[in-house]
Amino acid sequence: MKSLDRFVRALRRLPGVGPRQAERFAAYFLRASQGETEEFITALSSLKEDIKLCRVCFAYSETDICALCADASRDHSQICVVEDPQDIEAIEKTGAYKGLYHVLHGAISPLDGKSAEHVKVRELLARVQQAQPPIREIILATDPDNEGETTALYLADLLRGQVEQITRIGYGVPLGGDIDYMDEMTLGYSLKGRTKI
Amino acid sequence: MKSLDRFVRALRRLPGVGPRQAERFAAYFLRASQGETEEFITALSSLKEDIKLCRVCFAYSETDICALCADASRDHSQICVVEDPQDIEAIEKTGAYKGLYHVLHGAISPLDGKSAEHVKVRELLARVQQAQPPIREIILATDPDNEGETTALYLADLLRGQVEQITRIGYGVPLGGDIDYMDEMTLGYSLKGRTKI
Repeated sequence: MKSLDRFVRALRRLPGVGPRQAERFAAYFLRASQGETEEFITALSSLKEDIKLCRVCFAYSETDICALCADASRDHSQICVVEDPQDIEAIEKTGAYKGLYHVLHGAISPLDGKSAEHVKVRELLARVQQAQPPIREIILATDPDNEGETTALYLADLLRGQVEQITRIGYGVPLGGDIDYMDEMTLGYSLKGRTKI
Repeated sequence: MKSLDRFVRALRRLPGVGPRQAERFAAYFLRASQGETEEFITALSSLKEDIKLCRVCFAYSETDICALCADASRDHSQICVVEDPQDIEAIEKTGAYKGLYHVLHGAISPLDGKSAEHVKVRELLARVQQAQPPIREIILATDPDNEGETTALYLADLLRGQVEQITRIGYGVPLGGDIDYMDEMTLGYSLKGRTKI
């Protein structure tokens, strides 16, 4: 059935969707009422129409400048650099950060042919150089994986001297984790990063 | 952001999609080109327009009667009863079956308030009673879980005397499985269902 195969192919482009899940999603839509399907299509269309990237930090925004960048009560001398727009929400939920963000939209990954030009690095540098008041701290909150590490090291080199301090998020054992099941790298970092209690 | 929340809510209705995956899907569409998004919407719309249920067996079909039911080379005296349309493809892939199918679109589940009237049981009975040539065998291939078992037992009672034989798919250890990790019920069935080699 051509229409089914075509939709399953379209679903397979979604991140992490395998053949089974794509078929289950297609089955959901085949069972769904016309109204439900139309609501889905309308929601998707408005998403594409209404949401753009903030001109300053490249987070998702319905306005030219996002709510966080426009918020005078936030600390405008701190920028937390993240890979993806979703990372912002995760950090906001902690309540531990009151500065601004910068979304790279990816990480540097030489193996995948992704260099600094493929992510919003040039925009970050320009932003730091033009910032008034000047930026005091850059927090590198890229993922703790190979690409994220490479990107953090690259940015630390690039931005050195431009700001008072550059920091990297702390590594260690996650809360609720099990020491027994922790990989040795993480456990090693958690020992090196131990704090007095 | 209202448009984002609305689309995430629509995505959450897909089977098995949690908040994280819904956000990742939304991020995919936010990054996707206008062309990719339009292709997705067109594929979904044609799915809903082109695909209906076969009038005889209730499988997905682009025609009034599906390709399998219309195929004279298949054994029209055998009906394999399955819960979902996707089950047909799984069984077809085995190459071990050359008869017809009947899709119940669910299973009987008293706990969820789903009785025989909620699935295509009446249609199966009518089909069996009107079949020309008569049906020789009904294979009950509902899932090997509580609901599937209940449904198989219900159908066996209902159809007894109407066909030459009613069979249930064999239980046992799956290939590539590990005896060590198998639950005792399955292992018990696999012992009872042992065959000479």
